[in-house]
Amino acid sequence: MGESFGAWTIGNDAALMDHVTSVNIACGFHAGDPTTIRKTIETAIEKGVAIGAHPGYPDLPGFGRRNMSLSASDVFDIVLYQVAVLKGICEASGGSLHHVKPHGALYNQAAKSPELSRAIADAVKAIDTGLIFYGGSGTALISEANECGLRTASEVFADRTYQPDGSLTPRSLPNALIDDPSKAMEQALQMVRLGTVTSLLGQTINIKADTICLHGDGAQALEFAVALRSAFAENNIDVQAL
Amino acid sequence: MGESFGAWTIGNDAALMDHVTSVNIACGFHAGDPTTIRKTIETAIEKGVAIGAHPGYPDLPGFGRRNMSLSASDVFDIVLYQVAVLKGICEASGGSLHHVKPHGALYNQAAKSPELSRAIADAVKAIDTGLIFYGGSGTALISEANECGLRTASEVFADRTYQPDGSLTPRSLPNALIDDPSKAMEQALQMVRLGTVTSLLGQTINIKADTICLHGDGAQALEFAVALRSAFAENNIDVQAL
Amino acid sequence: MGESFGAWTIGNDAALMDHVTSVNIACGFHAGDPTTIRKTIETAIEKGVAIGAHPGYPDLPGFGRRNMSLSASDVFDIVLYQVAVLKGICEASGGSLHHVKPHGALYNQAAKSPELSRAIADAVKAIDTGLIFYGGSGTALISEANECGLRTASEVFADRTYQPDGSLTPRSLPNALIDDPSKAMEQALQMVRLGTVTSLLGQTINIKADTICLHGDGAQALEFAVALRSAFAENNIDVQAL
Amino acid sequence: MGESFGAWTIGNDAALMDHVTSVNIACGFHAGDPTTIRKTIETAIEKGVAIGAHPGYPDLPGFGRRNMSLSASDVFDIVLYQVAVLKGICEASGGSLHHVKPHGALYNQAAKSPELSRAIADAVKAIDTGLIFYGGSGTALISEANECGLRTASEVFADRTYQPDGSLTPRSLPNALIDDPSKAMEQALQMVRLGTVTSLLGQTINIKADTICLHGDGAQALEFAVALRSAFAENNIDVQAL
Repeated sequence: MGESFGAWTIGNDAALMDHVTSVNIACGFHAGDPTTIRKTIETAIEKGVAIGAHPGYPDLPGFGRRNMSLSASDVFDIVLYQVAVLKGICEASGGSLHHVKPHGALYNQAAKSPELSRAIADAVKAIDTGLIFYGGSGTALISEANECGLRTASEVFADRTYQPDGSLTPRSLPNALIDDPSKAMEQALQMVRLGTVTSLLGQTINIKADTICLHGDGAQALEFAVALRSAFAENNIDVQAL
Repeated sequence: MGESFGAWTIGNDAALMDHVTSVNIACGFHAGDPTTIRKTIETAIEKGVAIGAHPGYPDLPGFGRRNMSLSASDVFDIVLYQVAVLKGICEASGGSLHHVKPHGALYNQAAKSPELSRAIADAVKAIDTGLIFYGGSGTALISEANECGLRTASEVFADRTYQPDGSLTPRSLPNALIDDPSKAMEQALQMVRLGTVTSLLGQTINIKADTICLHGDGAQALEFAVALRSAFAENNIDVQAL
Repeated sequence: MGESFGAWTIGNDAALMDHVTSVNIACGFHAGDPTTIRKTIETAIEKGVAIGAHPGYPDLPGFGRRNMSLSASDVFDIVLYQVAVLKGICEASGGSLHHVKPHGALYNQAAKSPELSRAIADAVKAIDTGLIFYGGSGTALISEANECGLRTASEVFADRTYQPDGSLTPRSLPNALIDDPSKAMEQALQMVRLGTVTSLLGQTINIKADTICLHGDGAQALEFAVALRSAFAENNIDVQAL
Repeated sequence: MGESFGAWTIGNDAALMDHVTSVNIACGFHAGDPTTIRKTIETAIEKGVAIGAHPGYPDLPGFGRRNMSLSASDVFDIVLYQVAVLKGICEASGGSLHHVKPHGALYNQAAKSPELSRAIADAVKAIDTGLIFYGGSGTALISEANECGLRTASEVFADRTYQPDGSLTPRSLPNALIDDPSKAMEQALQMVRLGTVTSLLGQTINIKADTICLHGDGAQALEFAVALRSAFAENNIDVQAL
C-alpha cells in the first residue's frame, strides 16, 4: 500500500484496509511519496491495521520490480533508511511500526540469497529488535532473520502456483497465476489448515502460512480480499495481525 | 555534511568534524544517499559531535538551493520524512538525533514565512519534542518554533554581511560574502561577545548567536573552522553543542 | 499526453487522440518515461495528430506544477534537452515534431517573465527554427517567441475564466474554472468566432484563439473534447493542426 | 565525460579533451544534467573532438554501474531517449553526433547478451543509421551492431587485463587492473600494432583495436592520456577519430 506517487494513484488502499489485518507500506524508493506515506499510515492507524514497512530498490520507473545488483552493504543501507522512515512517521502519527516485508525484486532476490537476506535482517534489527520480519515460507529471508534473532512470519500466496521445490512459479512462466478465485480460495484454505500446498506437478509440499499476501495494486484485490475473509469465516478461521 | 551522492563526493566531512561541535546531515532529498548518511552519522558519533538533520527540498539537480512553491502541508510531510530518516539511522547506529536545521532554499523561504516555518516546526515536534530547532537569528523559523514549544538555537553567519533589517544580504548582491578571514573572525567575535552585528550600512543590530554556521562544501571550510576555533580559544570563548 | 510513468497510468491518450488535431507530449522531467513517450508518439503518428513537445520542470513528485526558481540559463538547458528528446524519438518513429508548448508551472511562470520566455524560445529555436511555439494568448511566451523569429500559436482555454487584464483567473481563486459545459462551449465559440472573451467582471477582451487547450489528465477530457468538436462542426468551424 | 551532476563535479573534461580524439558524453540517466551535457558538447565541438552518446541505466545513485534486469524493449527505449538527447543538443550547438557507446553495467551486460546488444543497436539505428557503434572487441555488441547494418568500432582497454577467452578480467578479481603505466603502454602498443593481447595466463589472443578506452573519472586519466599519446607518437602511430 501507499504506492501512489505525486499525481499518480495506484490501489484502493482505504477500502482494502477494511478486509486485511496487516499492510505493507511503500517507503519512497520504489513508490510512495512523503504525503502518500503519511496519509496511508494515518488510515492504517485509524482502521487498527498492523503497519509494516515495505522497503524496495531505488527504482521508481521500474516500480522496484527489476532485479538490481546491489552489494549486501548497500542493501543494508537502503533498508535501514526506509525502515527508519516508516518507524518515524508511524510514531509521529501516534502509531507504531509492527513488521517489515521487503518489496518486489529485493524480496525475490533475497529469497534466494542468504547474504542479501542477512543484510536486510540486520538493518531491520538495527532499527528495532522487536519488529517482525515477513518473508516467503521456506526462503533465505526467514532462515536468516531467525538466525539473527528476529521474530518472523512466513508468507504464502493464495493466487500463485508453487514449484516442486516450494518456490513460486516465476511470473514469466505460464500457470504462474491462479486466475480462478475458487481455486485460489481452496489453496489458501489448504495452506492454512493443513500447512501444505500442492505443486504444479502434484506433489504435496509443506508450507508455513503465518500470513497471506494480497497485492494492493491488483484490479481485483478488493474483491479477492472480501472473498478470502468470507471463506475463512465460514471455516471458522480467525484472521489477525501477528 | 553527508552531501555526497553515489559516485559524487562533496566536502571533507571527517576532517571538518574535528573542529566543530555540531553538524547538519543531509537526508537524501537535496543530497545524501543512504550509505553516505549512515557513514556520516557513524563518524559524527565516533567524534562526539552533536547530530542534526538537514532536511531540504526534493531537488537533487538543484542541490535544494532553488526556491520551490510547496504547500505548507507538503513541507510538513517532506520534513517529517527526512527527520524520521536521520533519527532512525542515528539510533540504529548507537547515537541520537540532537537538532534539526532546514537546508538551502527551504531555510531561506521559511525564514520569511511564518506558515512554512510552522509546518517545519510542527513536523520536527511530531517526530520528537526534545529536538532543538536551528534557524536564523530573528527569523520566522525561530519565532514559530518557539511558539510551538520547541527549544531553539539562533544561528548567525561569520562570513555573510547583514542588512539593516537584520536579514542576510542576498548572495545575488555584491558584498554578500565576507572574503577577508580576519573580518569574518572579527564579526564572529562581535556577534558572540556583544550580541550585535554591524550592518553593511553601519547600523548596530541586535543578534542572538547561539550557533555559528560553516558550510561544509566550501573550499576553505576546514581552514576557516580552524581559525575560528583558535580565535575563540584566544578570547576564552568555549564552544560546545547546545 | 504521455504523462504516465512506469507502473502509474494517467489519462486516456489513445481515445482522446481521435478528437484533437494536435497533442503535447511529456518529455520525462515532470512526467513520462522513455517507453510511454515512444508509444504515445507512435500512436500520434498513427492517428495523424500533430506532435508537440511538452517540456516541464524536473519535478516528478510535483508533476511540474510547483513554481521553481531556475535561472534563465538553466531553463534554456532543460528545454533544449527535452525538445531534443521529442524531436529525436519522433523522427526515429517515422514522424516529425510539429510544435512546443511549455508545461505547468514553467508555462505559468514564463507567461509573466520575458526573460524565461526568451530562454524557452531560444532553446526551441536552437533545436529547430521550423517548430511552432504554443503559448497563452497575450503573454510573454508569444511576444518573446515572435521576437526571436519563431512562428507562434496563441492558446486559449474554454473552461477557464479570464481576468480584466486578459490573464487566466488563478486556480486558487473561486470561479477559476467553468464547470458548466454549455458555458465553456459558448466561451470557446466566442473566442474562435469573435476573437474575444468576456472577463469575470464583464469586460470584452480581445484574444487570439489559434489553438484551444484540453487537459488530457482530466476526468471529463474525452467527453468535453467530443462536445467541443461537435459544437464546432454545427457552426461550420473546421479544426486542424497549424 | 559530462558525468558531473548539479553541484557535484567529476572528471577534468576540458583538460582531457586536449589529448583524445573522441569522447563519450553521459546523457542524464546514470550521470550528467542538461547544463553539464550542453557545456561538455560545446567544449568538444570547440576542441574538434568526435562526440559520442554514452547512454546508461537509469540509476543515478549507482552511477549506472549496477546490473539491472531491463527487458530488451525497455533497453531499446532508454537508449532511443538518450541518443535522441545527445544528437539534438549536438546539432543545436552547431556540431553533430558521431558515435554511441553504451555505459557501465549496460555495456557489460549487453557485451554478453545478443538480445540486449541488438536492442541497443536497433535504437541507435532508429535515431541515425550513420552513427558508429562502439563496443568491446569480440563481444555481442559488435556482432549485433554489424548484423543490423551499423558501422562499428572495436574497443580495447590499455589498463585492464584479459582472460583466455578474450573477455576482460572482472574488476572483482585481483589483477583486473594494470597499475604499472609502462605495462599498460606496452599492452596498448601490442594491441594496436599486432592486433593481439596477452592474457593473464600467457595466451596470445586476437583483438581488434579500433579505439582505446580511457576513463574520464579516474584520478590519473590526464597523465595516462598524455603518456599514451606520447608513446604512440614515438612509434609513428597516428591517432584520429574514426
